[in-house]
Amino acid sequence: MNCIIAQSGGPTSVINASVVGLVEGNFEKNIFKNVYGGLNGIEGILKGNIINLSKMSKVELDTFKHTPSSGLGSCRYKLKDYKIDETDYIKLIDILNSLNIKAFFYIGGNDSMDTTNKLSAFAKEKNIDIQFIGIPKTIDNDLVFTDHTPGFGSAAKFIATSTLEAYLDSTVYTNNGIFILETMGRDTGWLAASTALATIEGKQVADFIYLPEVPFSEEQFILDVKSRFKEKNHVFIVASEGIKNKYGDFLGSINDNTTHDSFGHAQLGGVANYLKNLIIQSKVTNRVKTLELGVLQRCALHCSSKTDFEEASMVGKAALNYVSSGYSGYMVGIKRDTNTPYKSSTFLVEANKVANKVKYFPKEWINPKGNNITKDALLYLKPLISQLNQLNFYDYLPKYKVFNR
Amino acid sequence: MNCIIAQSGGPTSVINASVVGLVEGNFEKNIFKNVYGGLNGIEGILKGNIINLSKMSKVELDTFKHTPSSGLGSCRYKLKDYKIDETDYIKLIDILNSLNIKAFFYIGGNDSMDTTNKLSAFAKEKNIDIQFIGIPKTIDNDLVFTDHTPGFGSAAKFIATSTLEAYLDSTVYTNNGIFILETMGRDTGWLAASTALATIEGKQVADFIYLPEVPFSEEQFILDVKSRFKEKNHVFIVASEGIKNKYGDFLGSINDNTTHDSFGHAQLGGVANYLKNLIIQSKVTNRVKTLELGVLQRCALHCSSKTDFEEASMVGKAALNYVSSGYSGYMVGIKRDTNTPYKSSTFLVEANKVANKVKYFPKEWINPKGNNITKDALLYLKPLISQLNQLNFYDYLPKYKVFNR
Repeated sequence: MNCIIAQSGGPTSVINASVVGLVEGNFEKNIFKNVYGGLNGIEGILKGNIINLSKMSKVELDTFKHTPSSGLGSCRYKLKDYKIDETDYIKLIDILNSLNIKAFFYIGGNDSMDTTNKLSAFAKEKNIDIQFIGIPKTIDNDLVFTDHTPGFGSAAKFIATSTLEAYLDSTVYTNNGIFILETMGRDTGWLAASTALATIEGKQVADFIYLPEVPFSEEQFILDVKSRFKEKNHVFIVASEGIKNKYGDFLGSINDNTTHDSFGHAQLGGVANYLKNLIIQSKVTNRVKTLELGVLQRCALHCSSKTDFEEASMVGKAALNYVSSGYSGYMVGIKRDTNTPYKSSTFLVEANKVANKVKYFPKEWINPKGNNITKDALLYLKPLISQLNQLNFYDYLPKYKVFNR
Repeated sequence: MNCIIAQSGGPTSVINASVVGLVEGNFEKNIFKNVYGGLNGIEGILKGNIINLSKMSKVELDTFKHTPSSGLGSCRYKLKDYKIDETDYIKLIDILNSLNIKAFFYIGGNDSMDTTNKLSAFAKEKNIDIQFIGIPKTIDNDLVFTDHTPGFGSAAKFIATSTLEAYLDSTVYTNNGIFILETMGRDTGWLAASTALATIEGKQVADFIYLPEVPFSEEQFILDVKSRFKEKNHVFIVASEGIKNKYGDFLGSINDNTTHDSFGHAQLGGVANYLKNLIIQSKVTNRVKTLELGVLQRCALHCSSKTDFEEASMVGKAALNYVSSGYSGYMVGIKRDTNTPYKSSTFLVEANKVANKVKYFPKEWINPKGNNITKDALLYLKPLISQLNQLNFYDYLPKYKVFNR
C-alpha cells in the first residue's frame, strides 16, 4: 500500500518541507510502503511522471527539505467538473491503482483545494478506495479557516528584512525623495502588511502601507504623500500589487494589456511604477525610486522563518496521520494555540470550504485612514517570522536539490 | 588632536564596518583623541554636521558596524578644481581646524578618490597640516589597483544566492519560458559575473551572462536564446544594467529619457524589460519573466560575506595606521596574498591614480562567444563571498542603527 504527494500552484520557500515532513512521518510510523512524488502536480502525474521518495537517502531528503520552490515541480491545471468530463479522473485513478496508491496528498492554495475536493468527491461517488487530503501552502496567506498558511511567514520575514534594508538605502542622502516598495499578495494585503514589522529603534520605517482591502484614492494618496514629504523630505511607501481604485480596477494593470493565467487570475505588476508616475505628474518631486521584490518573496529561503519551516513540515506529517485515521476531502489547517509563547497545532477543514475562497486582511486591523495597519495585526504577524532557518551550504552558497529538473 | 571619517557615493552592505574598524583601531592605539563622523560626506561637513564616534558605547558601535548602507549618510558632491574656486576648500579647512582635526578619511569610490586627491593636493600646496586618506568601497568592484573593493563580496554573495533561488522559482512548471535577471554594475560586469557562482549539483544555472565589456549584438542574442529555448524549453539570462550595443548606447536607456546624476553618469535601468520585449518581438516565446535585483544588491547585509565584512573593517583600521605613518593623498588598496587559503593585506596607492578611472572585467575572463565567464574568473570570485556574516537580531529581524536620520 503506497501514497503519493505532489505540489501545485505558485512556489513558496518552505513547500518542500511539507513533502519531507510527510516522508519522515512515514519512516517513523510505516503507514505506507512507499511515498511517491508526483512531478509537476496533477499535470505530471497524468503523464506518469512519478518518483519514489522513500528510496531517497536521508541526506538527499534533508537537502531537498532545505530547498526553496516546488522541488517536485508544479502546475496550474484545473480539473473539469467530473459531471461534465470524467476523462482526467479515470486516467488518474488508473495510474494511482497501477501503483497501489491509497492516498493522494496535494500541496497547494485555494485552487488546489478545489482539485482535492473534486477528486475526493469523485472517489466517494464511485466507491474508489483512495483518500485525498490537501496540505496548505501559499505566501499570500489567503486561505480561509487556517490561522495562516505555510510559506507566508518566510515571505513575511524576507519582505520585512528587505524593507528595513531598502529603507536604510533610501535615506542616505540629504535629498532622498520618495521610495515605493511593491509586494506580491494578489487580492489580499497580508504580504504588504508584513512590511510593518520593519522598525528602526522601535519606529516603523514605512510611512504608508496600501492594501487591496481598501479602495485606493489617488487624491488622498497625493495629499498624504505631499504632506509627509513636506514634513520629512522623504517618504517610504509600501503598495501591494493588488490595490484597486474605487471602480475595482487594478492600478498595476490600468496601463497594461492584462494577461490572465489559466484560472482567470489577472497577472499583476507595475503598481510601483503607476504610483511613481502619479507622484511625478502631481509635481510632488521627480526623485522617486521603486523596488519590486518580485519572485524573491516566494523563494528566498536564505532569509526564512524557522517557525514557518517547522510548521510546513508539521502539516505534511499531520496529513499522513489524518489519512491513517480515514479522512478524505479535507485540508490540514493550522490553529494558533497560544501567542506568547507561540504554539500551534493542526486541525481538519473540508477542502470544499477552502476551495476558491479568499481570506482578506481583516478590516479591524487597518487604521481608520486606510493607509497603515494596527498593533493587533503586528501581534498576529510577529510570531510567524520567529527564528532564523539554518541552511546547508556548499562553496559558500546554500546547497539546494530538486527532483523535477 | 582629532580625526574625521565620512562616507560618500552609493551605499554598500559593509561600509559602516570601515568606519567602526577605524574607531576600534583608534581605541587600541590611541592615535587621535576623538574620531569624528561627518554626516552626509563633504556636503554635511561643510554645514558642520559632525558627531563624535569616540563617545559612542561599544554596543552602539557594534550595532552600527552590523548595519548596511551609509549609516553616517552620504552625498554626491563634486568639489570644483581649487585653482578655479577655493571657496569649499577654505570653508572645509576652517571647520576641520576648529575641531583640531589632523586627518580626514573618506570612504568612497572613484569619485570620492577624486575628492581625496584634490583635498590632499590643496593642503600640501597651502602647507596645511591635515592628511587625507581614501578608503575604498563600491559594490561595482571597479576601482583600479586594488584587487577588489569592500562591498563587492557581499553584493556578489546576495546576487549569487538570489540567482540560485530565482532559478529554482523559474523552473517549477513544464512550460517555464524565459527568465531575465538584471544586475547593477554600471560600466563593468563584476556583479553580473558573480551570478556564475550559482550552481546546482555543479552546473551553472545561468545559461548566458551579458557584461558591459562585450558590445551586445541583438542578432546573436536572439540566435543564442532561440536555440537554447528549443533545446531546454527554458532559458535563464543574466544581464548587467550597463550593457551597450555596438554604437555604445545603453540598452536600458534606449527607450528612456535618460537622466544623469551630478557626476554626469547616466542613471540606468530597464535592460531586462528591453530584452524581454526583444524576445517577444522575435517570437521566441511570450512567456518571459524579469527580475531587477535593485537596491537590495547594495544593502542586503542579511546575506553578506564575512570575508568582505572583515576586509571592510581591515581597510578602515589600515587607513588609521597609514595616517600615523605620515601618508596623505593615498587610497588604501587590498592585495590578495594567497588564494588557497585566501589571505589578503593592504597597501597604498596614490588617490589620483584611482580617481575617475574604471577597472573593467578582464577580457581574458570572458568566453570567446562573449556570453559567459571563465573558470579563472570563478577562482577570483569565490573567496570573496566566503563565510556568512552573522548579524544582531531584535524581534526576529536584524537590529540596525544609523546616525544620520
